Amino acid sequence: MVRVGVDEAVAEELLADMPAGAQVVRIPRRAEEGDVLDVDFWMVPFARKGAEATFRRLRGVKVVQSMMAGVDWITPWLPPEITLCDGRGIHDVSASEWVLSAILAVMKRLPVYRDLQHRQEWKGFATAPTELMAEPGLAAGLYRVLGEDLAGKTVLIVGYGSIGAAIESRLAPFGVNVLRVARQARENPEVHPGDALHGLLPQADVVVLIVPSTPQTRGLIGATELALMKRGALLVNAARGPVVVTDALVDALRRHHVRAALDVTDPEPLPLGHPLWTAPNCLITPHIGGSTPQFIHRAFRFGAEQVRRYIAGQPLENIVGPEGY
Amino acid sequence: MVRVGVDEAVAEELLADMPAGAQVVRIPRRAEEGDVLDVDFWMVPFARKGAEATFRRLRGVKVVQSMMAGVDWITPWLPPEITLCDGRGIHDVSASEWVLSAILAVMKRLPVYRDLQHRQEWKGFATAPTELMAEPGLAAGLYRVLGEDLAGKTVLIVGYGSIGAAIESRLAPFGVNVLRVARQARENPEVHPGDALHGLLPQADVVVLIVPSTPQTRGLIGATELALMKRGALLVNAARGPVVVTDALVDALRRHHVRAALDVTDPEPLPLGHPLWTAPNCLITPHIGGSTPQFIHRAFRFGAEQVRRYIAGQPLENIVGPEGY
Repeated sequence: MVRVGVDEAVAEELLADMPAGAQVVRIPRRAEEGDVLDVDFWMVPFARKGAEATFRRLRGVKVVQSMMAGVDWITPWLPPEITLCDGRGIHDVSASEWVLSAILAVMKRLPVYRDLQHRQEWKGFATAPTELMAEPGLAAGLYRVLGEDLAGKTVLIVGYGSIGAAIESRLAPFGVNVLRVARQARENPEVHPGDALHGLLPQADVVVLIVPSTPQTRGLIGATELALMKRGALLVNAARGPVVVTDALVDALRRHHVRAALDVTDPEPLPLGHPLWTAPNCLITPHIGGSTPQFIHRAFRFGAEQVRRYIAGQPLENIVGPEGY
Repeated sequence: MVRVGVDEAVAEELLADMPAGAQVVRIPRRAEEGDVLDVDFWMVPFARKGAEATFRRLRGVKVVQSMMAGVDWITPWLPPEITLCDGRGIHDVSASEWVLSAILAVMKRLPVYRDLQHRQEWKGFATAPTELMAEPGLAAGLYRVLGEDLAGKTVLIVGYGSIGAAIESRLAPFGVNVLRVARQARENPEVHPGDALHGLLPQADVVVLIVPSTPQTRGLIGATELALMKRGALLVNAARGPVVVTDALVDALRRHHVRAALDVTDPEPLPLGHPLWTAPNCLITPHIGGSTPQFIHRAFRFGAEQVRRYIAGQPLENIVGPEGY
């Protein structure tokens, strides 16, 4: 019998796919001092806060399964002899959908129109009030309040992997030109190596960040990189907040050099009064990109499948290597 | 020499593709009483207001080219012996992009997050204030503030034609089930006839209206049809305002029976104080779906190509039949 540890609050229906031979161990959020639970296979809860403290109450853990694509919040405290699996793949649908929604919302000026809706002002044809028109680059001019086509644009995907490929497949029918960059160059499709980033940034109308969070990707997009972006280009951060240097982004937004759509920020949560909230041409969602009700089900189906592999003695998927991803 | 009438304000660059043998006649917006201009081929300006008055000042018109997919605003006053061509096809890109942006924005709750951004509140995980959570149907519950997947949903396209096919091709990689209905049934792909609408509405998570505006489509979606929609389903109107019975929609929205994304309304423009502005779960853009700077160029390239055909004695495209579309 393999003991599978899950948070006490996980709904019973999410565990319906657990294989025979698995015994679910509910982990209470509040524990008495000294309480210890025997668990072989631990499914880390989505809540990051307290995950380390919970781990310290578990005994005999051999496998840790994260539901997140990124595991940078687990590696610092997890002993290296324990197998860590990430959630690569299970976020593809919801994360790529968020990226497409963010790109299209900015192209069609949905945030501006939402604001106009609250004012109950029907203003489409270049008549919107100028304070809503803080828009840089090519989009300015006579037709600036209308939408903008995605067709014909160049989209650079930074950190091209499983989610990146899902983004590209959804972009394909829009008739865009896709450029790809990742840590390691690959062929079919052509993925440029990381050091090609500076050469690719000036070509892109949209830059999508989907890199894992590692020491190497921290501050990947700073003042230099923002300056290399086209005037009016859109930066989409679906990775992690610290991948972008916040002060440099606020500055580039205020100078109307770029636009941004952010699902992650640094700091996060973004506090009241932070200049990003009110920076021009910046759409912010509170780290919801990967998370949908359907995702939760997908995640636990994947977790159950991993438990089945573990019981059957088959190789696990998504094992995190020593490099952290 | 064929005299091509265009509005005085049309930028010179938009006329760059005019063929040899075409003589551009600039039509002033303000004319002295009794002024008459000789024009063979008239490109109707985008502004509907005053189009009929402008037409009365033109002499010898043989062809009228509209840049809009719908020509319901021209047919009532245009003598039947004049050839009328519509803008079918030139809107495919921008209109289908708007539809995708509207569907994805609602799935990912971007209007709610935009409102939270103005409050500078980072609230993603089921903690948003309840007054923003006026959301019906399956989406309600623990995860209601997060996004929702488009994947796996059923999308019904009502008025399946050129734009409908463009919408479907962009939906395809999202893994949705597409249903189609049009005036006349067709095969490959299967398009259901108009009288199948009532049977299809209860199956759809998203209903996209892209029908032409004709006497037959006026009030196509009323209280009966809205009641047939699934609770929480999304109605997307990218057609014309009067295709939907506004009072019935306001009522269905207020009862949280459906959600809506509207690029067109009835009345239009929507006046200050109209209940649609503040109806729950309703996103409104001011009839901008088809119009992007890139569209303007596409439209005039198409117009120039029509002029070329006319001069060469070739059949024109998009001739509007006696049925009005």
